[in-house]
Amino acid sequence: MQKIETYQSLVIDYLENYAVSKDPSNLYEPITYILKLGGKRLRPVLTLMSAEVFGVDAKQALNAALAVEVFHNFTLVHDDIMDEAPIRRGKQTVHDKWDLNTGILSGDAMLIMAYQFFESYDSDTFKSLITLFSRTALEVCEGQQYDIDFETRNDVTIQEYLKMIEYKTAVLVGAAMQMGAIVANASHTDQKAIYDFGRLLGIAFQLQDDYLDAFGNPETFGKQVGGDIIENKKTYLYLKTLELGTQKQQDSLIDIMGNQSIEKDEKVNKVKALFEASGAEEATQVAVKDYTNSAFSVLDSINIANENKQVLRLFGEQLMKRRV
Amino acid sequence: MQKIETYQSLVIDYLENYAVSKDPSNLYEPITYILKLGGKRLRPVLTLMSAEVFGVDAKQALNAALAVEVFHNFTLVHDDIMDEAPIRRGKQTVHDKWDLNTGILSGDAMLIMAYQFFESYDSDTFKSLITLFSRTALEVCEGQQYDIDFETRNDVTIQEYLKMIEYKTAVLVGAAMQMGAIVANASHTDQKAIYDFGRLLGIAFQLQDDYLDAFGNPETFGKQVGGDIIENKKTYLYLKTLELGTQKQQDSLIDIMGNQSIEKDEKVNKVKALFEASGAEEATQVAVKDYTNSAFSVLDSINIANENKQVLRLFGEQLMKRRV
Repeated sequence: MQKIETYQSLVIDYLENYAVSKDPSNLYEPITYILKLGGKRLRPVLTLMSAEVFGVDAKQALNAALAVEVFHNFTLVHDDIMDEAPIRRGKQTVHDKWDLNTGILSGDAMLIMAYQFFESYDSDTFKSLITLFSRTALEVCEGQQYDIDFETRNDVTIQEYLKMIEYKTAVLVGAAMQMGAIVANASHTDQKAIYDFGRLLGIAFQLQDDYLDAFGNPETFGKQVGGDIIENKKTYLYLKTLELGTQKQQDSLIDIMGNQSIEKDEKVNKVKALFEASGAEEATQVAVKDYTNSAFSVLDSINIANENKQVLRLFGEQLMKRRV
Repeated sequence: MQKIETYQSLVIDYLENYAVSKDPSNLYEPITYILKLGGKRLRPVLTLMSAEVFGVDAKQALNAALAVEVFHNFTLVHDDIMDEAPIRRGKQTVHDKWDLNTGILSGDAMLIMAYQFFESYDSDTFKSLITLFSRTALEVCEGQQYDIDFETRNDVTIQEYLKMIEYKTAVLVGAAMQMGAIVANASHTDQKAIYDFGRLLGIAFQLQDDYLDAFGNPETFGKQVGGDIIENKKTYLYLKTLELGTQKQQDSLIDIMGNQSIEKDEKVNKVKALFEASGAEEATQVAVKDYTNSAFSVLDSINIANENKQVLRLFGEQLMKRRV
């Protein structure tokens, strides 16, 4: 097993060589642009780690890892259109820098290019990888649709919310790890287990995101603390307050969220106070721990060397300790 | 070999059963809607015909045929957004009936679903089909990008235009036919030949489209005759007039096309007169015949029974005789 940074470099080096100038430039330039915007490259790194954990060289899983990364970036391009987001990683989004049509068409091309990465594998591996990939990609679309639907619904349950983040975020983390296992020809039982490890860690990661958005340290947190609250997002903290809070706390939350004239800082502070008083803040931390521990239990069941389990466990712990 | 209508029924019956209600409904309802809007189902029919020509039952190629049809409908949904088209086949387009985000996301899901159709084939066939499919799908995106680019360019050459319609339209017809051959395990030489037959026929078909848009019989032509002229589209007729016409005719064409105040009927009549006087009208008919004949030459080289060649030839001839 190598250091995370080694895997990241592998991914970044490959992307540098991959993103060549090609005609028509109006289609391919935006693709090069978004792929070079940076990011943690978390998903492809997990594919590479998984391959090594199951006993093959990370390089063998590089094409699968890149497929996942290019797919993830495709979802960012189309999601940014749907969210009307002008900024991504501190830079202009594709549809904002170019235009709507470029965002749509370059995104479409990226989805197809993601599939093409798998062509370097033999037929059986190719079919296993693509079957998993298509199922996952469709679930990600479903997750995005649930997320859109929830914006205009006032009766979203915790269970529905968990399904949404599982589909929108966590299944791709699971699939990224299973792909490493597929390339390494791991057993189906181990494939399923590493998928579940990634999926559970993905859910924990997203719940942690919800938590940090409100309770992260403003000095180390990358984004504006309270962004979700200002945008009236129905996060886990919000839904949990409606579940656990007194009637008064629930009414208060709905009242503040619906108040158009309240000042931003006051809104954030009041809502955070409700998250804490209702027990939602603590419940969210407990949920993050529970999903992380479930992930670790699944990890224990996998038929790999203990030192490799330790590497994955450490990686999971670091993810959950993050304050950014 | 069976009648075209038999193949169409196979495709339509399959689509009826395929388009089931599934959650989230806001994602899948628009997909069911567009898939049931109708159309000639030309591409999937060609896949089925090709499979039978190479000696296997059409039903064996049904999943590949449906992949092509679902992909084609995906391109319609996203292209209609890019063209801001409110109507498709006499009905509201998806983004107009629902909204922009629905058009984008349902389209994305259709592209993924198209890939999933191939999962019924064994690994080797699966890999051959998908490799062809991805290459073709990316070329279709490139063709759409060229089409967009050409709108704002005044120096488009005939050669560039032919490449654009080849990518945007013809390669998918070629791929549809090659997929039938792949399912039937035809030789690589025959696969390439049937692909070229479809590709050349596809180019002829698109040039015929350009021709009929201006010179079709208004009583039998489905759309408004002269639609391309009214929209200032740089069609083969237009580009050929700039190539073959006298300086006066060229200036006249550019003048009329740039004239904002000219009445529609007058514009159509004047431009058509220029298409005829310059020789572009005849040159377009010649080009349609040339591409059709090239397609038939390739067909002759294929290692299949003469009666099967006759079926495909007849189909091509009917396509080129169409006045709608």
